Amino acid sequence: MKLWDKGIATDQKIENFTVGNDRELDLVLARYDVLASIAHAKMLAKTGLLKEQEATDIVLVLEDILQYCNSKSFTIDTDFEDVHSKIEFMLIEKLGATGKKIHMARSRNDQVLVAVHLYLKTEIGELKNLITELFELLLVLAEKYQDVLLPGYTHMQIAMPSSFGLWFSAYAESLIDDIIVLNAALQVVDQNPLGSAAGYGSSFPIDRMHTTQSLKFSTLKYNVVAAQMSRGKSEKTAAFAMSSIAATLSKMATDACLYLCQNFDFIRLPGHLTTGSSIMPHKKNPDLFELIRGKCNKIQSLPYELTLLTNNLPSGYHREFQLLKEGLFPAVENLKSCLEMTCYALQNIEVNTSILKDSKYKHLFTVDTLNELVTRGIPFRDAYKIVAEQIEKGTYTAPEAISHTHEGSINNLCLDEIRQKMQAVL
Amino acid sequence: MKLWDKGIATDQKIENFTVGNDRELDLVLARYDVLASIAHAKMLAKTGLLKEQEATDIVLVLEDILQYCNSKSFTIDTDFEDVHSKIEFMLIEKLGATGKKIHMARSRNDQVLVAVHLYLKTEIGELKNLITELFELLLVLAEKYQDVLLPGYTHMQIAMPSSFGLWFSAYAESLIDDIIVLNAALQVVDQNPLGSAAGYGSSFPIDRMHTTQSLKFSTLKYNVVAAQMSRGKSEKTAAFAMSSIAATLSKMATDACLYLCQNFDFIRLPGHLTTGSSIMPHKKNPDLFELIRGKCNKIQSLPYELTLLTNNLPSGYHREFQLLKEGLFPAVENLKSCLEMTCYALQNIEVNTSILKDSKYKHLFTVDTLNELVTRGIPFRDAYKIVAEQIEKGTYTAPEAISHTHEGSINNLCLDEIRQKMQAVL
Amino acid sequence: MKLWDKGIATDQKIENFTVGNDRELDLVLARYDVLASIAHAKMLAKTGLLKEQEATDIVLVLEDILQYCNSKSFTIDTDFEDVHSKIEFMLIEKLGATGKKIHMARSRNDQVLVAVHLYLKTEIGELKNLITELFELLLVLAEKYQDVLLPGYTHMQIAMPSSFGLWFSAYAESLIDDIIVLNAALQVVDQNPLGSAAGYGSSFPIDRMHTTQSLKFSTLKYNVVAAQMSRGKSEKTAAFAMSSIAATLSKMATDACLYLCQNFDFIRLPGHLTTGSSIMPHKKNPDLFELIRGKCNKIQSLPYELTLLTNNLPSGYHREFQLLKEGLFPAVENLKSCLEMTCYALQNIEVNTSILKDSKYKHLFTVDTLNELVTRGIPFRDAYKIVAEQIEKGTYTAPEAISHTHEGSINNLCLDEIRQKMQAVL
Amino acid sequence: MKLWDKGIATDQKIENFTVGNDRELDLVLARYDVLASIAHAKMLAKTGLLKEQEATDIVLVLEDILQYCNSKSFTIDTDFEDVHSKIEFMLIEKLGATGKKIHMARSRNDQVLVAVHLYLKTEIGELKNLITELFELLLVLAEKYQDVLLPGYTHMQIAMPSSFGLWFSAYAESLIDDIIVLNAALQVVDQNPLGSAAGYGSSFPIDRMHTTQSLKFSTLKYNVVAAQMSRGKSEKTAAFAMSSIAATLSKMATDACLYLCQNFDFIRLPGHLTTGSSIMPHKKNPDLFELIRGKCNKIQSLPYELTLLTNNLPSGYHREFQLLKEGLFPAVENLKSCLEMTCYALQNIEVNTSILKDSKYKHLFTVDTLNELVTRGIPFRDAYKIVAEQIEKGTYTAPEAISHTHEGSINNLCLDEIRQKMQAVL
Repeated sequence: MKLWDKGIATDQKIENFTVGNDRELDLVLARYDVLASIAHAKMLAKTGLLKEQEATDIVLVLEDILQYCNSKSFTIDTDFEDVHSKIEFMLIEKLGATGKKIHMARSRNDQVLVAVHLYLKTEIGELKNLITELFELLLVLAEKYQDVLLPGYTHMQIAMPSSFGLWFSAYAESLIDDIIVLNAALQVVDQNPLGSAAGYGSSFPIDRMHTTQSLKFSTLKYNVVAAQMSRGKSEKTAAFAMSSIAATLSKMATDACLYLCQNFDFIRLPGHLTTGSSIMPHKKNPDLFELIRGKCNKIQSLPYELTLLTNNLPSGYHREFQLLKEGLFPAVENLKSCLEMTCYALQNIEVNTSILKDSKYKHLFTVDTLNELVTRGIPFRDAYKIVAEQIEKGTYTAPEAISHTHEGSINNLCLDEIRQKMQAVL
Repeated sequence: MKLWDKGIATDQKIENFTVGNDRELDLVLARYDVLASIAHAKMLAKTGLLKEQEATDIVLVLEDILQYCNSKSFTIDTDFEDVHSKIEFMLIEKLGATGKKIHMARSRNDQVLVAVHLYLKTEIGELKNLITELFELLLVLAEKYQDVLLPGYTHMQIAMPSSFGLWFSAYAESLIDDIIVLNAALQVVDQNPLGSAAGYGSSFPIDRMHTTQSLKFSTLKYNVVAAQMSRGKSEKTAAFAMSSIAATLSKMATDACLYLCQNFDFIRLPGHLTTGSSIMPHKKNPDLFELIRGKCNKIQSLPYELTLLTNNLPSGYHREFQLLKEGLFPAVENLKSCLEMTCYALQNIEVNTSILKDSKYKHLFTVDTLNELVTRGIPFRDAYKIVAEQIEKGTYTAPEAISHTHEGSINNLCLDEIRQKMQAVL
Repeated sequence: MKLWDKGIATDQKIENFTVGNDRELDLVLARYDVLASIAHAKMLAKTGLLKEQEATDIVLVLEDILQYCNSKSFTIDTDFEDVHSKIEFMLIEKLGATGKKIHMARSRNDQVLVAVHLYLKTEIGELKNLITELFELLLVLAEKYQDVLLPGYTHMQIAMPSSFGLWFSAYAESLIDDIIVLNAALQVVDQNPLGSAAGYGSSFPIDRMHTTQSLKFSTLKYNVVAAQMSRGKSEKTAAFAMSSIAATLSKMATDACLYLCQNFDFIRLPGHLTTGSSIMPHKKNPDLFELIRGKCNKIQSLPYELTLLTNNLPSGYHREFQLLKEGLFPAVENLKSCLEMTCYALQNIEVNTSILKDSKYKHLFTVDTLNELVTRGIPFRDAYKIVAEQIEKGTYTAPEAISHTHEGSINNLCLDEIRQKMQAVL
Repeated sequence: MKLWDKGIATDQKIENFTVGNDRELDLVLARYDVLASIAHAKMLAKTGLLKEQEATDIVLVLEDILQYCNSKSFTIDTDFEDVHSKIEFMLIEKLGATGKKIHMARSRNDQVLVAVHLYLKTEIGELKNLITELFELLLVLAEKYQDVLLPGYTHMQIAMPSSFGLWFSAYAESLIDDIIVLNAALQVVDQNPLGSAAGYGSSFPIDRMHTTQSLKFSTLKYNVVAAQMSRGKSEKTAAFAMSSIAATLSKMATDACLYLCQNFDFIRLPGHLTTGSSIMPHKKNPDLFELIRGKCNKIQSLPYELTLLTNNLPSGYHREFQLLKEGLFPAVENLKSCLEMTCYALQNIEVNTSILKDSKYKHLFTVDTLNELVTRGIPFRDAYKIVAEQIEKGTYTAPEAISHTHEGSINNLCLDEIRQKMQAVL
């Protein structure tokens, strides 16, 4: 098997295979690993496992490292297989024997666990902020365009009158559901796994409540086996929540791409937000919305990837859990930029205010006409026949104005109620 | 194209194709459709769209139908394409013209929407009850077997001591996360979509808050377009939550199948819970756990199915939304029976109380030995070398007893704290 | 745990849980089980494990049972847990001790395996027939409508001229790729697993080549462990191929739903192929295409379901393999009916022959104009500017006619070549 | 919306969002883009669209660029949004106006399409080579260890005798199925899409058969719309095939991890192929197999990602098709290294030759004993009872030797037949 008789080359292949792109991915975990190490050191001092002075020295150096982690210049060189060994090395370089004591009563497993939990807590917070910005923008747009009518479709067939007020605020109200799911993910990751060591705890008399409080976790993931099992489960829960947001953005982008099509022409994008074609002089393509749709669809495959990585494995740590990060971290970045780009694109779209002038939309109002007849005392079935006959003969004419007054309808958008509902879950 | 020139046969194919198995699936929706119709009728009376007497008559008949729906004899015959037309037919049969008025100010779309939301609310409640039963059982078992040690594995290699106390209660604590996600799903479906009609509201001056209150929804899904968009989104959110529970049960069943293997022999099943082989006289197979694993794995594919059905479709109703039920309803039933069967199987397993007597497990305790040396003042690296040398020479002996005292460890399971954490989210 | 103290009720739950809907699903396997049993009996006689007379008696009874299996009256009553025990019971009922000998040198595992392989061979053949019918229809339609132009879109923006000739035959040529993938699935399932017993072979001196030939398999799955591993793998391979076809049909249905939208109005459906609305008198909904799209999207989730059921399980039989059938069998039926319904719908659509008269499509031809200028010697960049300026000023006029002559373009559809390519893979 | 009022920063965000990591991913496409450009230039000359001298000049420069692409120093700087514009720029830099002519009668869309098809053809060839190497190794190992027995499990319960000969060659024979599916993918991508331009062809009288031949494609994807639709479809077909291989490797790695567990101890890894633990001195972890399993499981999520990206989109190009590469390219690299690493690991494993000495495996042989009784004339049911009673009483003893002689069984592995079957599909 000639592939393998190359000595050094082989070892490099193995190294590449096992380390993968951990060094690059781990950069985002660096600051969380340092924060957890600081909490761990303080707890060790509190329980007497470290001397006060040792802990003070360690914390001081770690605080320096924290600054460094937040800078652009921080990298993990190929001497280290991950961020955890790099940071421990820096500590030992500065403090010698004292530095080595930081690894007491913990293991690589719970270091990664706690760093991922801290990372997810922060990023879920970021996502909530971005969703809130989008939510507010949608309500502003809904109010601004509340009088602009739009055809509503069912089965992709012209159905009944809708409005830009309804359209914008529908997505706003949908985002509340996404926040609810995101809150659940936040609650799941807001539990301290530190102290579970390799997944079975240890004989050191550590104080896990202490690290829980100093890391500002709401509670402890008590059972050490449960803490270990949260690897993969926490990521999947976050991925489900991210999928939920992504589905909302993808649907809005799908609508936007359709509405931008000349056959609809409901909205338009300014030139600088479209791309041209190298051969077609007339093209103005809405790449921004297409890429939001595509990136959000890709994010929706993340839960499947994470499920395949973890499913049917017995409890306890398995090495491939390292691969959970590969899909998760870029998905978080992509979702954040999709939220930002959706805001940016929506701020720039122009709304066509005279859509319904086109005669093909006149049948939109048949139900309004019919309901009007019913209200005037004509039985529903008879009214239905009257209008159907008008349509058949081509004599049907749409009413001058419509009046949809119930909660959540065209003339009663309930934007305040929707805003209050969001407030209640933030 | 000879397939299609058969007249009647063709029409039957189309009928089969479009109706599918709606008649069978809709049985579970019947009672919710009736309940929503009762609320709708009362609201119509309150707003003056129905006369008081008409509403009273309609409600009386619907209450009879409700009894009938709850009975085994209720079926949807082939004259009707779904449960909604069947129920409306029964109403008209009894009340004539008055019966026909029930469909005023609503549409098939919001009828299905509200029925599915009521269904999911009920079933999520059922799931929470079943999870609570399993949770309690696991804590009872954890307490009962807290002193029985078990090898803990990492990388599927013998690692450190664990215990049945840890194992049982780890799954209990994991279920808390599942409840959290399930609560989010409950909050998402606990919003009244009734009154959104075909997805764009109507010109009838209905009172949606009234139906919200009489159907005991916590709030209204205000925006009618958002209400329509919740079709698919609500089902997916419930499916994500169900996936989360399913993953927990699947993992426990995976552990159980491994532990029942003669090479582990950590637990045993009584004969009546195993199946034999037609050709191997010695076989006792744990089909129960294998089927829990398999059914729960299948449930984890549900979110993907629902995503594929709905993704990249613009807003507004599309006919294939009818297919959402096909995967959802059996998954709910399967998950409930998996929860029941897990309880049943766990109540019947026997725990091997002398696992660690086997010499292959003695290395489980090397970290305890090492920590002991560290505590006695020997530097970690030196201690590590001492133990490693003992292992190499075969002179290593495990300590008589272990003492893991921190929160969530073998000798401090924190079962009360875990129980309180569950209480806080129920 | 009150759920479980009910005696009989509990046992019924377990029975329901383990048997599931096997009795119903197994009906489709009945005839294949009988065919394999006939081949098995003949082989046992040939190797001397059965006497000639015994085999003759068994085969005669099995041939009767085969007739019965093909009739509507065949059912599997609750006395039997699956089709295999039912058939064996019928054999024993007729032949006594001789009947019992049929199970020699085989096991339930390889019985299911061989039945599933025979089933998939047959159904893949059916699918190929249905695809061929659709392919031919598409080519006929492409020829019929080759001169009817259609706007071509990129980024859902009006781009360049296309035609119904191109549109219909594009899907025809795409189906060739689906046949290629289906052929691979056929080759994979066309290997005889019979004789692998429980997955490890047996000490009986059977002749597996004999059953391979009498069951008309192209080859033997030699290795008995490999034969057992084909459980799940064969189903997944077939599911991948089915997904490929489903994606093609789903895309065509997506196009059709868009083209039927009044904003496009490229094609129309006759009234009897649309459904109306209970409240909107003007609605004609294309449920047929929507359901094709939805059912085909659901089929595309099948490989994921089967992967989740089988992934990360070690080699050897696991009980949940029984659940593979639950998703597979309905998917096969649904895909066949989607192919039939696509044919039916396409035969009935009307093509709008004057689409391009609408002025919004005039920019379709800018590239043709530009190329014309280039051909006349004007450098590309200059030509691009000239046309762009005309568009800007609104002076651009489309050419009278277009001439796309290269292989596979509007005026040179290469239908014969496409037909030949299909022939080569059938 | 303060996010967007930052001028330059915003534009950079948009640039990052739309270009993504195309510049990095496109490196692998560079050489294929150049090869296709060479073929395109020659064809343009042949049809008179380019002068002979122009084509000669272009080809010469492109051949230089090809050398450069194959070198490590080739990068795509941020001035260019993708590899196609970079290469065209280099051509124009060298040749001026002549260089600009290369883009005649093609578009970015068919450039990417043809490059991806050429890439997939090459990589599928690579995969087939690597599979063949693994196949050969497995057969060598099967032969070498054909006499070493292994317990066979069903339901993860000790079942019947198996052997390393069976185990190794089972995976070899399974790989044949993967080659069959891979061949289908090869056939699908081996069709020339060049000349389809933006998906609707063009008015230039190009000769697509000419480029088909010079690029060594087996056939033309004739229909230009079908050619455009192969975007996504080709990638998915390749991804399905890669999933099939990945599932095989994942299953073998799952077996290996189980067999390496001390409770099984069927195989061992030499120290340099295991990793230690920072805290447990006794650990030797099989990270290599765990990562093969994990990476292969991740690959199995690729078809889902690609399906979500493309599903429910109407025909015609959409910008998010650019995102197809993001998942595809790393998956190809990962699958190749998993194949290499599987070979490497298998070459280094040690096989435990005395597994069956352990008394817990004696029941493996009950079926052999039973069959022996049957062969001696005792009816099957009686024989079953005799053996069952021996097991019950603890008097059962396993036979000295076993004789499994039928095709594909322990003593008749049919390695030559398996090798021939592979030859037939290579």
